[in-house]
Amino acid sequence: MAEKAIIILAEGFEEIEALTPADILQRAGLSVELVGLTDEPVTGGHGFCVQVDRALRDTEDVQAIILPGGLGGAENLSQSERVVANARRQLESGRILGAICAAPGLVLGRHGLLNGRRATCYPGFEKHFGPEASFVEQEVVEDGNLITSRGPGTAFAFGLALVRALLDDETADALAERMMFAGR
Amino acid sequence: MAEKAIIILAEGFEEIEALTPADILQRAGLSVELVGLTDEPVTGGHGFCVQVDRALRDTEDVQAIILPGGLGGAENLSQSERVVANARRQLESGRILGAICAAPGLVLGRHGLLNGRRATCYPGFEKHFGPEASFVEQEVVEDGNLITSRGPGTAFAFGLALVRALLDDETADALAERMMFAGR
Repeated sequence: MAEKAIIILAEGFEEIEALTPADILQRAGLSVELVGLTDEPVTGGHGFCVQVDRALRDTEDVQAIILPGGLGGAENLSQSERVVANARRQLESGRILGAICAAPGLVLGRHGLLNGRRATCYPGFEKHFGPEASFVEQEVVEDGNLITSRGPGTAFAFGLALVRALLDDETADALAERMMFAGR
Repeated sequence: MAEKAIIILAEGFEEIEALTPADILQRAGLSVELVGLTDEPVTGGHGFCVQVDRALRDTEDVQAIILPGGLGGAENLSQSERVVANARRQLESGRILGAICAAPGLVLGRHGLLNGRRATCYPGFEKHFGPEASFVEQEVVEDGNLITSRGPGTAFAFGLALVRALLDDETADALAERMMFAGR
């Protein structure tokens, strides 16, 4: 059975940061679901509206959970106890958690989930990391099962890093080439 | 009034190639509409479903028309007389036409719209260019009001090139930096 990944969308999500990893992971052969806080379509930060497959469950059981940024979207994710509980459980389970842009700071750091971790984020949002987290200024930062990235312009590299972590380098390299990202 | 751009979505469109330029152009201050062959939501090539603002009109009057790829999506665009007529009219009007991946070959080349033009596309699709078009192996190719690009991995550079053509270099450079694409 295909490995499963979910991308959690809340109103104001950054469209590139959500759809780019979704597309890349689906191409890699994973079963990808877009999951909302409810089962209604969700409008991103730039006004584009995407349908979701279902609402987020209290307890997800998937190989990867991905949290896109967008200031409004990440703020909405951060205020959902269900999102934060799933993120905490995912990190503790050893399965992959990905967060990009405003999400590492607002959704993880603010709730103490970056303690003892190395991570990156959109410039300025490291102020939410807390004193026990290390901010690293890199496009993508991997620390065990936590993969973080910086913004829309790094969403492609973030998607490929998720493929590397969930599958292998060969699959990621082949996808990069097939998607015309090779050599960037 | 804001300059207007439309992205035309048909079933099977490549999600990254549609949403990345849409997001970038909206951030640049353009009014961006996602436009379908009908006004129903459209499912992309990787199963993600996006709502459209409206159906494509017989005659569009916008500063930019953008044609995403995806094999199925570009094939569907190519078979729509309304899409091809709008693309032809846009090129003749001197206003911007953007096409990426399978779209330059399937939607433009196949209908003779690349005659006398320089363009790029996803590898292999240059066979649809016709003998009077020049294929250029570059991430983004600008030839007058025609801007073409190669695939999902070049969609970000494609979006920025559209901003350069529609507005100016300063806006594109500032966006690249703010979106964390600078230096790529």
